[in-house]
Amino acid sequence: MTRAFELAQKGCFTTTPNPNVGCVIVNNGKIVGEGYHKKAGDLHAEIYALRMAKEKSKGSTVYVTLEPCSYYGRTPPCVKALIDAGISRIVIASKDPNPQVFGNGIRILAKAGIEIINNFFLKKYDDLNRGFFKRMRTGFPYVQLKLASSLDAKTSLKSGESKWITGIESRKDVQLLRAKASAILTTSKTVISDNPSLTVRWNELPKDIQKIYQKKELRQPIRIVLDNKNIVTPNHKITQLNGECWLIRSCLQTNIIWKKNIQQSFISFDKNGVNLIDLMKYLGKQNINTLLVEAGSTLASSLLKFNLFDELIIYIAPKFLGDEALNLVNIPMINNLDNAVKLKFIDIKKIGDDLRVILSQP
Amino acid sequence: MTRAFELAQKGCFTTTPNPNVGCVIVNNGKIVGEGYHKKAGDLHAEIYALRMAKEKSKGSTVYVTLEPCSYYGRTPPCVKALIDAGISRIVIASKDPNPQVFGNGIRILAKAGIEIINNFFLKKYDDLNRGFFKRMRTGFPYVQLKLASSLDAKTSLKSGESKWITGIESRKDVQLLRAKASAILTTSKTVISDNPSLTVRWNELPKDIQKIYQKKELRQPIRIVLDNKNIVTPNHKITQLNGECWLIRSCLQTNIIWKKNIQQSFISFDKNGVNLIDLMKYLGKQNINTLLVEAGSTLASSLLKFNLFDELIIYIAPKFLGDEALNLVNIPMINNLDNAVKLKFIDIKKIGDDLRVILSQP
Repeated sequence: MTRAFELAQKGCFTTTPNPNVGCVIVNNGKIVGEGYHKKAGDLHAEIYALRMAKEKSKGSTVYVTLEPCSYYGRTPPCVKALIDAGISRIVIASKDPNPQVFGNGIRILAKAGIEIINNFFLKKYDDLNRGFFKRMRTGFPYVQLKLASSLDAKTSLKSGESKWITGIESRKDVQLLRAKASAILTTSKTVISDNPSLTVRWNELPKDIQKIYQKKELRQPIRIVLDNKNIVTPNHKITQLNGECWLIRSCLQTNIIWKKNIQQSFISFDKNGVNLIDLMKYLGKQNINTLLVEAGSTLASSLLKFNLFDELIIYIAPKFLGDEALNLVNIPMINNLDNAVKLKFIDIKKIGDDLRVILSQP
Repeated sequence: MTRAFELAQKGCFTTTPNPNVGCVIVNNGKIVGEGYHKKAGDLHAEIYALRMAKEKSKGSTVYVTLEPCSYYGRTPPCVKALIDAGISRIVIASKDPNPQVFGNGIRILAKAGIEIINNFFLKKYDDLNRGFFKRMRTGFPYVQLKLASSLDAKTSLKSGESKWITGIESRKDVQLLRAKASAILTTSKTVISDNPSLTVRWNELPKDIQKIYQKKELRQPIRIVLDNKNIVTPNHKITQLNGECWLIRSCLQTNIIWKKNIQQSFISFDKNGVNLIDLMKYLGKQNINTLLVEAGSTLASSLLKFNLFDELIIYIAPKFLGDEALNLVNIPMINNLDNAVKLKFIDIKKIGDDLRVILSQP
């Protein structure tokens, strides 16, 4: 199963909106087949492994990180292929929360006389697909809110200067977050002030990642901009670079001819801006598994306020920027320590000269 | 030497203003004597070890963490005792920067025909006495500036409420810092607003420390209050509890009868308060090796501004306290990212639910 996990991980840059799955087939104590899911529309992990094992699938034990699918999607159901191959036993590390599967895969295999070993005990197998799982269970994407901060919780100088508070290693680490995300969310305010590209630059990925993720396979996460005032233009980098870019707007703008990769989408805005719950539901419906938020303090503060995030990732540089610098977040007054916005550290790590902390809901 | 290091560490709560020293005597491959320095006025590590080894000192190899003393202080010089005992060889891990020793110990031993092995390569042996070393080298104490912060770099609510931002484990960790410090520095402002005791409470020390540091040996660090307006009174806890308390003032207050443990000291104040360089020189002259600063944002900000600290220790709670809460520090405006106050993370550790980061000058 450890090998199946390793295989599954290989897909983590490209499978979205599908889950990451790895599969290993063992016969007579030997690995006879291996496979993982690479991207949507492509063969599933089990099929790759069965094709490699050929007739050695008969009587084998199959280790798979996720419950095999039981329905006709873009590809025929894997349970059928596993039954047809005559496997004896299957060890499954995670149950598929997809309502089209959710135990059906297991039931069909068991009915065919295959021994089922449910190995649902290690969180790491669920974490492999936390975005996909969250979307399947709640309809919302898994939201990672990324911030860069000084020790005094400032995010840029009063002048707006923020290039760069954190060091190069932190920025490479952000490249990795982007590479794994289904989409990146930002605001027109950030686009106007920083003109960011929000792309994955393969050359800036950590060296060990470049070894497992080839440049030719590079997938750009969808760049999503909250732009209710229609102020993003074809001159902004975010609309010029390769990869899909969605402008979330309140009304269609017809006087501009956009490149093909630009899509205008509409959800309701009120005077406080977009309704973030509607936004998350919309993104879930659009099959966004993991959403990386790279924006300013306004959106960050709203997501914190409404608890609309799964991970808060702060890169902290060992610097003080001074009182006049701009706040990392703007959170209304709290009258009592019991009412403070409480989170939980789930990971702390030194990244170059900086510190990366990851927090979750408590 | 590892054993000598372990022994030396045992003294770290009580030796101030003396250094921590451990000594092991080996003869024919066997440990025949061990000792460490417990507190000023008490026997030195070498003498304990020689007394244990008795006639087996003859022809032995002595491992000592710090260069043996060469002068008559409260006790006779250790070099004399080592020569008289007829040792053959001595391995020394740190050179004593005390100008009264500083190589003299080594020279006298060598002159007596004892083989010297200078083992000055591991920073940990110098770190054992970083306070003593800094004072000997510069005349200033080793300054640890301790702060408690939220994720938004706030230190208390607008109401002043700060009990408690950080969790119980962090507060225990602070107890350990206090137990190791020669003195704790605070301000009358903190005394008036929080009425802290700033004592070591043995019951709150971590369990593993209690095992090596008995309650009956408890030493209270000197409590030092910057009080140029003479506003601290005998009603404040800091003056009532056991242990020395120094009130640093600009003029003598004669209308109050203080308990014996209270001492009024005088250094010059100007309109901005105390001259911090004068203060540090004064504390160095008073044999303060390590100074733990537990005060509010004003003193912390000044120490940061003038680089008058060796370690900045921040306990970060996984909370947001909101914009109206009080800033951790107040640092004047910075116009350019190159002018930011830059530090370096030297340690990061999860302490209970909180995060402890230790920073030094870059």
